[in-house]
Order: sequence, then C-alpha cells, then structure tokens
Amino acid sequence: MDAIAHRLQELGIVLPPPPTPRGSYTPVVRHGPYAWVAGQIVLEEGNAVKPGLVDRDVPVADAQAVARLATLQALSALHHVLGGLDSIVRVVRVSVYVASSPGFTRPHEVANGATDLLVEIFGEAGRPARVAMGVAALPLNAPVEVEIQVAIGE
Amino acid sequence: MDAIAHRLQELGIVLPPPPTPRGSYTPVVRHGPYAWVAGQIVLEEGNAVKPGLVDRDVPVADAQAVARLATLQALSALHHVLGGLDSIVRVVRVSVYVASSPGFTRPHEVANGATDLLVEIFGEAGRPARVAMGVAALPLNAPVEVEIQVAIGE
Amino acid sequence: MDAIAHRLQELGIVLPPPPTPRGSYTPVVRHGPYAWVAGQIVLEEGNAVKPGLVDRDVPVADAQAVARLATLQALSALHHVLGGLDSIVRVVRVSVYVASSPGFTRPHEVANGATDLLVEIFGEAGRPARVAMGVAALPLNAPVEVEIQVAIGE
Repeated sequence: MDAIAHRLQELGIVLPPPPTPRGSYTPVVRHGPYAWVAGQIVLEEGNAVKPGLVDRDVPVADAQAVARLATLQALSALHHVLGGLDSIVRVVRVSVYVASSPGFTRPHEVANGATDLLVEIFGEAGRPARVAMGVAALPLNAPVEVEIQVAIGE
Repeated sequence: MDAIAHRLQELGIVLPPPPTPRGSYTPVVRHGPYAWVAGQIVLEEGNAVKPGLVDRDVPVADAQAVARLATLQALSALHHVLGGLDSIVRVVRVSVYVASSPGFTRPHEVANGATDLLVEIFGEAGRPARVAMGVAALPLNAPVEVEIQVAIGE
Repeated sequence: MDAIAHRLQELGIVLPPPPTPRGSYTPVVRHGPYAWVAGQIVLEEGNAVKPGLVDRDVPVADAQAVARLATLQALSALHHVLGGLDSIVRVVRVSVYVASSPGFTRPHEVANGATDLLVEIFGEAGRPARVAMGVAALPLNAPVEVEIQVAIGE
C-alpha cells in the first residue's frame, strides 16, 4: 500500500467516487509538473448537499464539512487520474469559494474545512497558498466550491 | 494555413481584434510552458455588451453568447502574442465569473458558452479544468468574465 | 543592495512585516519556476483596515490604497521566503477580489491600486495578466483581497 493510502486508512478516510463533470470540462488537467482539479461542489443524487447561502441557510460548521467533502472529491479525482496520491509532492494553491449571505465575513473559517484536511493527509506538503472569498452564488445552489492545484513529482 | 486557423475557418469563426487592456495589466503573460490570459469581458465602444446581472437583466442564453465572445477575445489575444494558435497544446484552466442576481444558481451553464467553444476548436485538448461561480459584479457592468490558462508546446 | 531593494528605496517604500496566516495555509508556496502568494487582506491589530463593501462603505480611492497595501504585504511575504525580490523575473497573474455593494462596477479601478504598484517597482516585468471582480464578502470584512503568482529566475 502506498504511503498516502496508508495515511487515509489511519485517518479512517475512504475516498468518495471520482466526480463526473457536469458540462464541457474535465475533473483534472495534468500538464508539466502540475495538476489542476476543476472546482468541486458536493452533490447527492444530482442535488447540492446543504444547499443555500452560508450563514443565512447553512451554518459555518456544515459549510466546513462540505468543504472537507469537496476536497475529498478533488483527491478522488486526482487518485483516479494519477493512479494514486503518492506522486503529489505539494499542494500548491487552494481556492475556496463560499456562497455567502450579505454580511458573512468568515469564508476563511469555511476554507479551513478544506485545508485542515489537506494538512492532516499530506502534512506540511499539504499546506497551500490559499484564497477564500464569499461569492454571490454557486452552481446548483451549492454552499461551497473548492479548487485545487497540486505539484506532481517524477 | 496552420491547423487551428483551418479549424476556425471550418467553424465559420473569425477572431475579433485582440483586446486592449483597461488598466495596468497585459492581455497575456507567457512564461515557461504556460500562458495566462487576463480576464476577458466583452465591450462595444467602451460599454459592456448585454450589461447587468445574469438572470435578472441578462438571460442565460445571452450570457452564454457573451462567454463565447469573451473566449474568442482570449484566443485573439493568444493569437496576437503567440503568432498563431497551433502552439497551444492544452487548455489548462478556465474560470468563468458570472455577475449573478440573488438566487441565480446556474453559472455552470453560462460557463459552457466558453468551454463548449474551446472543445469545438481544440478537441479534447480544449477541455479544461473549470471553475464557475456567481459574483456580485464585474468591471463595467459586464455579465461574464472569462479567464484562461493554456499550455504551450515547444 | 540588490536592485529591487534599491528601487523600493527610490520610491520611498518600506515593506510591511510579512503576513501571518490565519488558518491552515501558508503565505507563499514556491515550486518549480513559480511562487504563489496566498490571498492578502490588510489587517491592523486583527481587524480589517477600511472594513466593509466598496462603494457603500469604502470609497474607491480608499480601496485602491488597501489594494496597494495588500500588494506590499504579498511582496513582503515573497521577500521573506525568497531572501529578496531580485529573483522575481515576472509577475504572472494578479487576482483582485473586491467586496462590492450591489451595482458597484468598477473593481478594475480598485485593481489598479495593486498592479500600478507592481509596474512602478518591477517595470514591464511587473505588468501581469489580471482578473478583477466584485465579490459578496471577504474574510474579516476586508474590502479587498489580492492574490499574486510570480515567476522565479535561476
């Protein structure tokens, strides 16, 4: 078993199935030493999990949980394309877009749901440059979208 | 004639003039194996085409058409800088920012206006990792802004 | 003294202290020929400088000043990690996220506060591909967040 698979098992994490694109894009582009994962939202039977605007409709703790699930989906997409996660040498950049009701100013707390997980799994190599912001709305009324770029080793 | 120019002709597409920056930025940065195109909005005589918020002011179909035009502008900028489009080996990442009225949850459909075109032109190499989101407002009241990163071959 | 330090002195610019992350991320990731700086907001004793939505609460000129300060913070973070700024050969991409009140359509003017400074300091190498947009809200009620990617020389 490779190191990250072992680490996931230690953490009791089972990756979800790789995401299916809903439009003319692909879940992962790998080129040169990097891979870019498309923005991930979390669906269940085609509907957003915990739909709505964070704060007004979705508590921060729930949004953090969705950010974590979206990150697991991104890792599943990478696992599927790379044939495992051990070739990831660095999580480079993570953007967390939070559908926010007016006056919600804690998107960075929601973002920790994504990046805490990456640090749990990859250690310091999982600690990215990060952007967090509150947006007006997301696809299918999802509360959170997570976008990840990683660096791939030889 | 190079392959992409031929493909554009087949599709009946004529690239618009390359965009002029409106501020202290440049339409394209090329560095290493990648080129980044600045976020593109579509203007006519200095005013946004189909201005306003998508859904409230601009129907989705119109916003898709603007996303397509913004993508053509990005390709025109790349053509101008690269001296053609044949050196593009992969469309890596496309972000589509949609100025959204409250409750509009279909930015991904607007985004298809951008990425469908890229797949028409470049085939599977044109299918990017994508992010789509609804934002509060865009420069000059534009309904859509499209940002593209490509990989360049030798 | 290295060239950029000299240029900063000529411009009368003193870099602020490098930023401290507020969550599970790092101010700068360097990998391959690029470095990514995390999205920068400007705080004073833990509170946002000029908090609120641009236009309704924060005039454009003030938001431009905050964008400039956020950019200086990003450069400070890069200086800290790279041991100086002379190894930056190109500013590749700058994203400026502006917390916008409804109907504010001048985020690109706010963004000039960031990119004008980069051109002052680095000349044409500081002129990036840029994205500017109005978002619903930012961390800690900050009016502006600036994200920068640079290319590093040998």
